[in-house]
Amino acid sequence: MERAQKFLNYFLSHRKVTNELIKKIDENNYDYKPTETSMAAGKLVTHMLTSFYMFSKTVKEGSPAVFGEKFEEIAPNLSEAAENYTEKTIEIISSLTNDELERTIDMSRIFGMEFTGIQLLQLAIDHEIHHKGNLFVYVREMGHTELPMFVSR
Amino acid sequence: MERAQKFLNYFLSHRKVTNELIKKIDENNYDYKPTETSMAAGKLVTHMLTSFYMFSKTVKEGSPAVFGEKFEEIAPNLSEAAENYTEKTIEIISSLTNDELERTIDMSRIFGMEFTGIQLLQLAIDHEIHHKGNLFVYVREMGHTELPMFVSR
Repeated sequence: MERAQKFLNYFLSHRKVTNELIKKIDENNYDYKPTETSMAAGKLVTHMLTSFYMFSKTVKEGSPAVFGEKFEEIAPNLSEAAENYTEKTIEIISSLTNDELERTIDMSRIFGMEFTGIQLLQLAIDHEIHHKGNLFVYVREMGHTELPMFVSR
Repeated sequence: MERAQKFLNYFLSHRKVTNELIKKIDENNYDYKPTETSMAAGKLVTHMLTSFYMFSKTVKEGSPAVFGEKFEEIAPNLSEAAENYTEKTIEIISSLTNDELERTIDMSRIFGMEFTGIQLLQLAIDHEIHHKGNLFVYVREMGHTELPMFVSR
């Protein structure tokens, strides 16, 4: 589990910052979007939370079946959703064995290629950092000027 | 060099996207900022390009001395700067040996802790993805709606 623990710390160094940003989003800003073609804040945050959960569940199960499940498009309360999904994701990551991390998973239906568990988790982190980078701009545009560092130690 | 080559591909899967976004920024938008307290587009891009170069040079030299050097705050032509810095960074990453990747570097003056070469390169990637995530919002706000995926394969 040492590798899983290392990865968990890496995940949390970014997720903690995501959750700090989410706390700053007022309910009346869930519909906020920087431009007409942008994803609204509530949808963006829900997408981040459910995506990481699905990536980690895929690594645990060795199959992307979870990507066929229905998730809510916009969580009714973003801070609560952040807490719940973060908890569920921590639980899965903590339980990953080295075999699960090294196992090859056929993601061709979704991403056109195979991934090992650890490669899929790295993609999940990259995806989180990317959208967190979007979210920093959104939250600043909502009027917040005291923002955290992009990664927490 | 196999690990360096792997890392180079990982770097390019994000840097190619960064450079695509940079090409969309007109010279009269170099001063563009989403809010009064945001970094202007030209400064943000220059920060991304010089930072990755400095991180990789630090790993090559085993010392953060390069962080003391003066870099331009805003490159006069962002697309040219992207090409030049990407080329210089590719050259350094390609040359990294396993010993250099595993060597511990004292970054306490800058980040308050030690890093191995590979840890520092991962931080450089995370930093690039974060600011590229910012840049996606900037470029959409400049009127571009046809944007690439956040990672290129």
